[in-house]
Amino acid sequence: MRKVTIWFILFVWTSTMFAQKRILMENLGVSQDKDITPIVLEALQQADFKDAILVFPKGTYHFYPERAIGKYHAVTNHDNSYKYFAFPLIGCTNIEIDGGGSDFIFHGVMTPFLVENSMGIKLKNFSIDWKEPFYLQAEVLESNALEQYVDIAVNPMTKTEFEGNRLGFVTNGLSLPFLGESMVFDPKTNAVAYNAQSYLLNGVASRKTFDQSLGGNNYRIKARFAKTPAPAGLIYVFKGPNRSNRLAPAIHLTNSSNLHLDKLNIYHAGGMGVIAEKSENIHLNEVNVKLREGSGRMVSTTADATHFCNCKGELVIENCLFENMLDDASNIHGTYVKISELVDKHTIRAGVNHIQQFDYNFASSGDKVEFITNETLLPIAPATVKSFKKINDHLFELSFVEELPATLKVNDAVDNVTWYPTTIFRNNVVRNNRARSILISIRNKTVIENNTFSSMMTSILFEGDLNHWYESGAVDDVLIRNNIFYDCVYGGGKGSVIWINPRMKQTLKDQPYEKNIVIEDNEFRTFDNSILSALSVDGLIFRNNKIIESGTYPKLWPGLPVIEVRDGLNTLIQNNSFEGKEKARIVIDENSSRSLKIDKKQKGFVIDKK
Amino acid sequence: MRKVTIWFILFVWTSTMFAQKRILMENLGVSQDKDITPIVLEALQQADFKDAILVFPKGTYHFYPERAIGKYHAVTNHDNSYKYFAFPLIGCTNIEIDGGGSDFIFHGVMTPFLVENSMGIKLKNFSIDWKEPFYLQAEVLESNALEQYVDIAVNPMTKTEFEGNRLGFVTNGLSLPFLGESMVFDPKTNAVAYNAQSYLLNGVASRKTFDQSLGGNNYRIKARFAKTPAPAGLIYVFKGPNRSNRLAPAIHLTNSSNLHLDKLNIYHAGGMGVIAEKSENIHLNEVNVKLREGSGRMVSTTADATHFCNCKGELVIENCLFENMLDDASNIHGTYVKISELVDKHTIRAGVNHIQQFDYNFASSGDKVEFITNETLLPIAPATVKSFKKINDHLFELSFVEELPATLKVNDAVDNVTWYPTTIFRNNVVRNNRARSILISIRNKTVIENNTFSSMMTSILFEGDLNHWYESGAVDDVLIRNNIFYDCVYGGGKGSVIWINPRMKQTLKDQPYEKNIVIEDNEFRTFDNSILSALSVDGLIFRNNKIIESGTYPKLWPGLPVIEVRDGLNTLIQNNSFEGKEKARIVIDENSSRSLKIDKKQKGFVIDKK
Repeated sequence: MRKVTIWFILFVWTSTMFAQKRILMENLGVSQDKDITPIVLEALQQADFKDAILVFPKGTYHFYPERAIGKYHAVTNHDNSYKYFAFPLIGCTNIEIDGGGSDFIFHGVMTPFLVENSMGIKLKNFSIDWKEPFYLQAEVLESNALEQYVDIAVNPMTKTEFEGNRLGFVTNGLSLPFLGESMVFDPKTNAVAYNAQSYLLNGVASRKTFDQSLGGNNYRIKARFAKTPAPAGLIYVFKGPNRSNRLAPAIHLTNSSNLHLDKLNIYHAGGMGVIAEKSENIHLNEVNVKLREGSGRMVSTTADATHFCNCKGELVIENCLFENMLDDASNIHGTYVKISELVDKHTIRAGVNHIQQFDYNFASSGDKVEFITNETLLPIAPATVKSFKKINDHLFELSFVEELPATLKVNDAVDNVTWYPTTIFRNNVVRNNRARSILISIRNKTVIENNTFSSMMTSILFEGDLNHWYESGAVDDVLIRNNIFYDCVYGGGKGSVIWINPRMKQTLKDQPYEKNIVIEDNEFRTFDNSILSALSVDGLIFRNNKIIESGTYPKLWPGLPVIEVRDGLNTLIQNNSFEGKEKARIVIDENSSRSLKIDKKQKGFVIDKK
Repeated sequence: MRKVTIWFILFVWTSTMFAQKRILMENLGVSQDKDITPIVLEALQQADFKDAILVFPKGTYHFYPERAIGKYHAVTNHDNSYKYFAFPLIGCTNIEIDGGGSDFIFHGVMTPFLVENSMGIKLKNFSIDWKEPFYLQAEVLESNALEQYVDIAVNPMTKTEFEGNRLGFVTNGLSLPFLGESMVFDPKTNAVAYNAQSYLLNGVASRKTFDQSLGGNNYRIKARFAKTPAPAGLIYVFKGPNRSNRLAPAIHLTNSSNLHLDKLNIYHAGGMGVIAEKSENIHLNEVNVKLREGSGRMVSTTADATHFCNCKGELVIENCLFENMLDDASNIHGTYVKISELVDKHTIRAGVNHIQQFDYNFASSGDKVEFITNETLLPIAPATVKSFKKINDHLFELSFVEELPATLKVNDAVDNVTWYPTTIFRNNVVRNNRARSILISIRNKTVIENNTFSSMMTSILFEGDLNHWYESGAVDDVLIRNNIFYDCVYGGGKGSVIWINPRMKQTLKDQPYEKNIVIEDNEFRTFDNSILSALSVDGLIFRNNKIIESGTYPKLWPGLPVIEVRDGLNTLIQNNSFEGKEKARIVIDENSSRSLKIDKKQKGFVIDKK
């Protein structure tokens, strides 16, 4: 039945593809010297929102929120607000935007592309940038560790707002009264600075600065730095306080299917580059999130380059460059919602828990879910959604066809397992960004191959949790092969290049959370020790990998083992090689040792079984 | 046709009234020790949102946002946001909430009552209050005019948040990083302090304070005060920065009809007490916006006590006490929207212009409007709305049955004249509040009688404008009689007790903006000079009024005439009396003098015709 539906949809979609009308935007009067937002809307209306290609002559085009379609709009992992859309692809079928190599420049707090309730959408061959960046960039002129201040020269691309003794900034019409979340880059590498986490102003410290004008664009920032202010020559970037700095993602895909993003350069966004939720079949090819050459900017997007929440079908991300974002390159996951009330035998109340998940459409009638135990994050039983009814933006009522499991209790969770994709992440380069390269929490087949990774934190992170991000879920089939990991985890935080780290309160030793992760034929050329740390995984294979100490930086965590497995079942470690100053320690805990298979002749290793 | 419709509606409404089912809330488990928000919803659902009286046993009940119905919600003259509603009277018919004399206590940023798309709603016999006030109150301990600081003792009912050298506060879960908009009260009078405007921190000054902790709840606030810091013993109140301090009105009435509010005490709201828009037939009886005795609070609502935007039918406000609000007692007006584009012969684009009007539903098909000239605010021609289509929250497309007037141009305005009420404002007391008593911009018959007014600014203000508030429109039939005006306009700003002050750029001398304002049989017992100032009015009558100088305070504006008329047509001033130290000056400009009728024997006056 389901297969028939899919084939029918594919048939309809494919057959309509041939009926696309070419709308030449020059005929509608697009020009490089005016706000063309209303003209895009006119073109879409002319096409009745279907079966058309909007073709732009190559040029630089400007978009403003004043005359854009607007509505209150929730975007997962962003800040919900009344938003304005330059390309409101809402309820569209078979629409292509062909930028012809154009630069699209956005002004103000707006969302360039919304693809919602649509099918068969292709965005290709253009760039997205903002006239004014959503952050402030400043070079350190002088640094005083004793008195805990830095003197900085603010890059004039962002307008400061100095009030009382607080330095804030105004950008895109948005007044950010505090410097807010910070990061430190090194202009010599164009990357996040080595050990940058020591230099940050975290949380309340970013609101408690005592700032002083030094004349011109120079300021003294006196504050409680994480450890010490960044030395002269490094670059601070500040993106304003939490809750005001994720308002303007570049491309939002939601409740849509068959989506192709091809040859795009996303130079900036006040949020993520591509954020997709509850959508099916997504293909990114040559979607680069990168610095625009000559822009003088150190930051591309102010949050993740790409992010996929509860997508399904096939997700392919290939041939992309992701650099200088202020968050991960890709985070692909589902959602754990927490039960607050057992209403009757078939009905619960549950909710999203992180404020940037608010107003999320968690489920629809017919979705398959799994109930999850709070303590172990392990499944209790499957069920089928009968109805999903929102009460408000963080609470809803869910009823199920089946009776609730007898052991189900308040604070257990629900995971919508209909909405996971099979995923291919290949031929991509991730570098110079804050945070991780990629996060994988997908139960379906996932292949990560032929990529190059170099991020300040973990390169590949596995971490379901039910207490902070509420991102599900356990993996079941992941292949990581032929990747090169250059210097990773250099930001100062603890972590491994590949880190399998589910966040359950309690581990059942015979029932691991993660399953079947194969890591093979990769090359690790990094400066620090920890390459792989794995917790609660069944069927982990680490073989034919080459590890070479790069010596680029002093080690940050010299005490950590190169490989560590805890609460693993059926682990295989085989035919890896290590080149470094000392032997590489492999640490396996007692529980994992029982079913471990390990090749004891691997070059450069020493095994430490508990 | 229209009459038939109204009679039919009245018939249906009246006949259904008898079918109201009494729902005893104690049977649903309301109790004084828990969040009863979900129980209210359950009661409404049980009644299928119609024909029911929810009867509360007398008690103190608590409401929280966590389990309340929520949605993104626009409220005119407030800050739009995702809001939570304790009583979501949405799509209701013939529903009464009978509080039985209960106290309803709200927690967090929520809107207690939303009446939307409803008909025949009665709210009676309860009070509305918040556990935590949406403002900070602080007594002045010491005041230093030379160094421009005050030392204050913060009332512990509000939690301060001291960061860097900024004093802010946290209330109802809302973090307000600056003190924000301020007012000064005098605990000896319980009213706004005489000449309070000298003591304020206005606009950017409220964000540029240098604050210092003096230990305990005491702080030193060093800032640029309007003139000088308030002397010791007075009370500062701060409600946080603009755009974060009008989030939680007590009662919002929108797109509804036949609404009765009876015997309510609104002790507090983070916004207005009653805000009504696009609603028909509204009756307020004994709706008091007042201080709760013994609360120690100096402020009732943080914005207007009541406010009516584009309402129609009959509006009656009687037997109410409005005191200690941080804004007007009543503001009754329409809306001028500004034309941004002439699209075709029948179509314009226009928009709301003040951010607190954003997302306003200005018109519907069939509404009668008038086109208004930008420069003079005078009507060009009437028209009938064919369609109203929102583009975003500040821009919409309006098409008309008729062709647009030939002279119509961009920046002219549209006034929706279908949506004005006939109004009675009687037997009310207004006192001790910030701002005006009432503002009247209503073209239909308006009677203001038997009230007592004493506000820090103008008591009765007439002011259409197309550059700041965009509140329409001209009056045509206003009777102000038998009111007592105690000390008014004592806050320090310029103004008259009754001030007719339309804000057009250009006055046409033979075409006044306002019409037919009769002011008779009133008593003015105030300390300052200016009783009546009138600009651009045809048919102003000021007769049989008694003016007695109270001597309560030193005069603030001794140079102003007692009565002044500019650009008036057909003014009549007759049989008034004045008692004061000097004779009262009546100043009439040359243009007004031509058609003036004035009784030269009035006691205590001297006439100064130009």
